[in-house]
Amino acid sequence: MIVPVIMAGGSGSRLWPVSRASYPKQFLSLNTKATLLQETVHRLSGLPLGETVTICNEDHRFFVAEQLREIGALGKIILEPFARNTAPAIALAAMLSDPDAVLLVLPADHIIENEKAFREAILSAMPLAEAGSLATFGVSPESPHQGYGYIEAGSVRGSGFDVVSFKEKPNAEIAQRYLNAGNYYWNSGVFLIKASSYLNELRTYRPEIHTACEEAVKVIGHDLDFIRIDETAFGRCPSESIDYAVMEHTRHAVVVPLDAGWNDIGSWSSVWEVGKKDEFGNLSYGDAVLLNTSNSYVRGDGNLVATIGVQDCIVVATKDSVLVAGKEYSQDVKSIVGTKKYRIGLGYRRRQSRAN
Amino acid sequence: MIVPVIMAGGSGSRLWPVSRASYPKQFLSLNTKATLLQETVHRLSGLPLGETVTICNEDHRFFVAEQLREIGALGKIILEPFARNTAPAIALAAMLSDPDAVLLVLPADHIIENEKAFREAILSAMPLAEAGSLATFGVSPESPHQGYGYIEAGSVRGSGFDVVSFKEKPNAEIAQRYLNAGNYYWNSGVFLIKASSYLNELRTYRPEIHTACEEAVKVIGHDLDFIRIDETAFGRCPSESIDYAVMEHTRHAVVVPLDAGWNDIGSWSSVWEVGKKDEFGNLSYGDAVLLNTSNSYVRGDGNLVATIGVQDCIVVATKDSVLVAGKEYSQDVKSIVGTKKYRIGLGYRRRQSRAN
Repeated sequence: MIVPVIMAGGSGSRLWPVSRASYPKQFLSLNTKATLLQETVHRLSGLPLGETVTICNEDHRFFVAEQLREIGALGKIILEPFARNTAPAIALAAMLSDPDAVLLVLPADHIIENEKAFREAILSAMPLAEAGSLATFGVSPESPHQGYGYIEAGSVRGSGFDVVSFKEKPNAEIAQRYLNAGNYYWNSGVFLIKASSYLNELRTYRPEIHTACEEAVKVIGHDLDFIRIDETAFGRCPSESIDYAVMEHTRHAVVVPLDAGWNDIGSWSSVWEVGKKDEFGNLSYGDAVLLNTSNSYVRGDGNLVATIGVQDCIVVATKDSVLVAGKEYSQDVKSIVGTKKYRIGLGYRRRQSRAN
Repeated sequence: MIVPVIMAGGSGSRLWPVSRASYPKQFLSLNTKATLLQETVHRLSGLPLGETVTICNEDHRFFVAEQLREIGALGKIILEPFARNTAPAIALAAMLSDPDAVLLVLPADHIIENEKAFREAILSAMPLAEAGSLATFGVSPESPHQGYGYIEAGSVRGSGFDVVSFKEKPNAEIAQRYLNAGNYYWNSGVFLIKASSYLNELRTYRPEIHTACEEAVKVIGHDLDFIRIDETAFGRCPSESIDYAVMEHTRHAVVVPLDAGWNDIGSWSSVWEVGKKDEFGNLSYGDAVLLNTSNSYVRGDGNLVATIGVQDCIVVATKDSVLVAGKEYSQDVKSIVGTKKYRIGLGYRRRQSRAN
């Protein structure tokens, strides 16, 4: 039995202006009708699943609840009063689950093209997780991407490999070396771990997080739809990713290859890349008129957007804001969001290369 | 005494989405606080002026009146129930003026950088107009522009030259020939003509227009602010520019050089050209954030517009529409406006190369 643990706390500043603190990208439809959160649940269909656990910021609880209700996957929704990154979030889910449950930790804002391959990878990792390994899923790199963390794989272990080390986002030279070596994987942010195994390792390596979370769930507020934890206790919890807190230290880390068209939608360029384009290489959404335009992503959310004589561009318009970016600059969108005047502020979960 | 006759009936579809049928460009501020209509009046300051006559579409009467009131230049406002191009509009103004008045016909949507040179050109043409010549102002071409009509100048006549012929918008080769020849001018759409002289020539060459206008002003509705003509009579009037109707036929046409930084603001590129740019060659207006952007015009009318990694681009955003165009494509904006779905329709005055 697999318990999906959906991490829906991201802020997605790189998809500004559509995604913002008050409406981050996991709640958006990109190239399909379903939202990324809903797709995250849909793609599990067929796996032996327990009740879904979703963790999100309190401010987003109605988006989350409504989107899960729509697809009949309401489950448990744990509300965080503020973001503390993935290690504490997963700890809360683990503490509120059966100790023997195998948790499938899923970022709510990724795309997987080949869902069957995804499910097969999960199933193949089940014996490892059940035996107490902490399985992370690694994507075979297609390019020397500098935007991801890398996992170095060692000896074969079941359907995967022992983890030799986790690597920070590399520079171009090092990324190329990783690609050539063949035993390095992109860190997907997807994990399969038994609740008790994770909590044991967390208690060993980051007892402050374990203690703070334990206190935070001691007195929980249950209403019909949401689980509220103790704010004061959670406030004492350090903010850290599962990679930093546990995976880099544990001797039970394994990496299982995930070759299923994974994309973390880290920028509008990714949205363009994964979508179905027309004969001119354009992907448009909403009310858009494209003339003499090629290899571009053009999106009007409620506005008419017209492009003329535009190449390799990202054009995204909402009711109050417009982004026009050269496609190779789409990673810089977060610097717009970061400018003083347009800071998105609230509920902002730091996005890392190695975890949600 | 000069009577300014301001032609404020244009539709300016090439400055979509800011300019549109319901709010054409003469009512907009581009690079100054004053609107183009107001600038049209301002630049006459110091000339010996009679009361201003403004002709506009009935739908725009409150824009016109308010903008003229603001600058103390209300004068006479003649309302056209529908657009009939410049020959009838000028006829109405002439018929409602003293026959000996010298009319200075001014498109309301142009920019003149050197206002002193402009006024000097007007004054230099006064003896010609008072003697019965129909003076048009010609701009010395700076480039083989294919977007303007050209005027071929002959023998010297006062401060100008006899007109040999009017030329349609040329192709590239012919435009280059005109530029090399040295006696060709861009047709500015500005005229200096005595009311009686114009009406005589109109009666001779286009009696239908003369008759229809004469009937249209026979019974005029005067309220405190507006002059309304007879709709039925005016409906019978052919729609024609002053160039087609009169200037090409009359033997009294003269062209007076106008070298005053004239620009008809026929596209967003023109707006960029005439404005004061920053060190990166950008001109921005409103709420705009520009990163890695150069030689571009970025305008947010009520929206935030952010550009990243953009060159030689026009980005214009209004509350409901966004235009992104390569600068060299900015003439094609009217084709967006022309698409069935976004037709601006109503009150649309055909814009010609040779007249407003």
